[in-house]
Amino acid sequence: MHQSELFSKASREAPSDEVSVNAKLLSRAGFIDKLMAGAYSYLPLGLRVLKNIENIIRTEMNELGGQEVLLPSLQPKENWEATGRWKDPGREVMFQLKGRGDREYGLGWTHEEIVTPLAKKFISSYKDLPRAVYQIQTKFRDEPRAKSGLLRGREFIMKDLYSFHTDEQDLIKFYDKARVAYSRIFKSVGLNALQVEASGGAFSKYSHEFQVVTPAGEDIVIRCEVCDFAQNREISEVEGGGACPRCGKKVTAERAIEVGNIFQLKDRFSQAFRLTYKDETGKDHPVLMGCYGIGLTRVLGAVVEVHHDEHGIIWPEAVAPFQAHLIALQNVKSVRAGTDKAYGTLQKEGIEVLYDDRLESSAGEKLTDADLIGIPLRLVVSEKTIAAQSIEVKARAEKNTELIKFQDLGKYFKTRKKIYVE
Amino acid sequence: MHQSELFSKASREAPSDEVSVNAKLLSRAGFIDKLMAGAYSYLPLGLRVLKNIENIIRTEMNELGGQEVLLPSLQPKENWEATGRWKDPGREVMFQLKGRGDREYGLGWTHEEIVTPLAKKFISSYKDLPRAVYQIQTKFRDEPRAKSGLLRGREFIMKDLYSFHTDEQDLIKFYDKARVAYSRIFKSVGLNALQVEASGGAFSKYSHEFQVVTPAGEDIVIRCEVCDFAQNREISEVEGGGACPRCGKKVTAERAIEVGNIFQLKDRFSQAFRLTYKDETGKDHPVLMGCYGIGLTRVLGAVVEVHHDEHGIIWPEAVAPFQAHLIALQNVKSVRAGTDKAYGTLQKEGIEVLYDDRLESSAGEKLTDADLIGIPLRLVVSEKTIAAQSIEVKARAEKNTELIKFQDLGKYFKTRKKIYVE
Repeated sequence: MHQSELFSKASREAPSDEVSVNAKLLSRAGFIDKLMAGAYSYLPLGLRVLKNIENIIRTEMNELGGQEVLLPSLQPKENWEATGRWKDPGREVMFQLKGRGDREYGLGWTHEEIVTPLAKKFISSYKDLPRAVYQIQTKFRDEPRAKSGLLRGREFIMKDLYSFHTDEQDLIKFYDKARVAYSRIFKSVGLNALQVEASGGAFSKYSHEFQVVTPAGEDIVIRCEVCDFAQNREISEVEGGGACPRCGKKVTAERAIEVGNIFQLKDRFSQAFRLTYKDETGKDHPVLMGCYGIGLTRVLGAVVEVHHDEHGIIWPEAVAPFQAHLIALQNVKSVRAGTDKAYGTLQKEGIEVLYDDRLESSAGEKLTDADLIGIPLRLVVSEKTIAAQSIEVKARAEKNTELIKFQDLGKYFKTRKKIYVE
Repeated sequence: MHQSELFSKASREAPSDEVSVNAKLLSRAGFIDKLMAGAYSYLPLGLRVLKNIENIIRTEMNELGGQEVLLPSLQPKENWEATGRWKDPGREVMFQLKGRGDREYGLGWTHEEIVTPLAKKFISSYKDLPRAVYQIQTKFRDEPRAKSGLLRGREFIMKDLYSFHTDEQDLIKFYDKARVAYSRIFKSVGLNALQVEASGGAFSKYSHEFQVVTPAGEDIVIRCEVCDFAQNREISEVEGGGACPRCGKKVTAERAIEVGNIFQLKDRFSQAFRLTYKDETGKDHPVLMGCYGIGLTRVLGAVVEVHHDEHGIIWPEAVAPFQAHLIALQNVKSVRAGTDKAYGTLQKEGIEVLYDDRLESSAGEKLTDADLIGIPLRLVVSEKTIAAQSIEVKARAEKNTELIKFQDLGKYFKTRKKIYVE
């Protein structure tokens, strides 16, 4: 894509009302635009990253045996009254509204109240189990504080998967597979997410949260410096500096962003909607459920919190909006012609490239914008490189550059090693 | 995918509260599920069709030069007050709600109020024009009647594109390109959509609607039996049976479904938000806008209204949930083994197959369900075909069948002609 035609423009200054690193950098670089506190527009660059994250998650959910669905956001009051959640937590969390004829609706912040009665239409026998469905969908929450950019939105995108089982053993088997899938997802998008024990509600001892340790986090994680003990401070009986209850070594308290959680719901919702199955003898039992969430827009924000420097964002390759940023450094005929040619070669190789072809920007502006936008691989054509029939290749995160002959550009992309992301 | 594991199940009976053909067939076949009037869940089969429609539309929008974005559904009152639409049409159309601190929001039923101030952040010079952005996104409308299944939803999915231009000539040039793209989209999804003149509002003589003639339609189209004159009855000066104002021949009045519309907004919204650009001499002008909508969920409903028979849906190949429906007719070891082998071959060829492997369904049930689900190509393995080392191939819409040797199955898919859809 030609950068001169891109809908967004990078900006020198962050919006004055943003405090979080993710919102400042993503806004300045033209990935998102704030409509109001907690609601952002995803601009072409931002949507490309979001779709990369989405595809990584979708692949893993399909692999788990999840079937993709799409459930409504506009939900009838009746479903939420069946579980008591219309009143508690009620408006503390949920946007509630009245339409024509004073009909009452809520905007979905989770979908147990929709997916459980839906599953009841298709599940009646042990032969119909196990099942798992998921969606990637917009959710709404009336957050009291919405000041952390994409980390806490009033409107945000989630993947939520719901699983259905005959018994606890089958639920736990699936739950453990989901834990592994989650670890792979976070690693793929460039996040080092800890598995942290958290409150299991009334029905389970623990749930598990996936927490990314970073100063921008709103949660506190207590974890052992030696073993794999890690708990959300909300449930932990030990404080930072104390002794690990598992191995006795020291635990630390650190800020972290919760990017996913998994939860054994057991029969909390199947009881409310009488979702049962008949076993081989014809006896009825409640279906046991699990739920598994990942906040996609929060993951996007967390990636930026973790992967940036003083100049801008540094995207992990798997989620970067483009694979390479091609820059015609000077507005000189030979440089333009050389960069056009390189662009043609890259397109033929199927490499997704943002081509900075802007005529009126200085070399300095182009490099500053490229630092801000953060595409992991940069290809610069300048009068100097043209003289050597070459293109300068530089990883966003590194100082070193490499000269590649124009004729070797296609081969370079076929054989190069992916940039390492910790 | 193995049909025995599919989340949904086909049902003999339509939900008692559905009157439209599209909702009855799509519900019975397990593509959608009604949560309440005007709000449906898209089940795995339905979502697959929706994604096929989405990809056809996305390809054409990118080809037009559109850049994909995603704008919020939850929108501040202030933006809608700027154009007067908070009050008029106001609650007639829009769900309006209050959140914490009595802050007022509306749920987006269109996005001019969001995209115009957004464009103002990036467009200031003639050099920034033209531009076009689009989204594929969930919209909300507080419809008084929501009884036509997917044809009129309170929550529905739309593609809306907005274009920005320096002058009317440039706007019209883009508008005409969009008309051609729309015609291609509807043809691709299997709809014969007329281009119909409709009200242009206060600023243009006409807008254009894309109307699919079918008894289920809620609009009336007046069209000439000979020339290409076609108008929405709302603006037409001639009645059905009258003389065509263009060629003098007879016009008819027919019911039709509006699946898309395109509209020259000109400066209606750029004036409200002071979206202007500087020309080469530094003089300010309002940016001229166009908007271009397609209802994806409505398209899905319209396809079913047009493509069905007394037994069920007949999907056009381009949008079908699977390319082929493979059926193991009898629950006999040789048939099961033969069908498993065929399934393996088809998967290796990259053919998307729904494999009816259900052990407890009779041959009759399987064929009845296949008729209802409507995958355009059916592959049946039975004791009879096994004896001939073959598989029976049948187009959903036709009576004739063809026997293909197991060993020729891969070749058949490489060379077969696509099923024709009018």
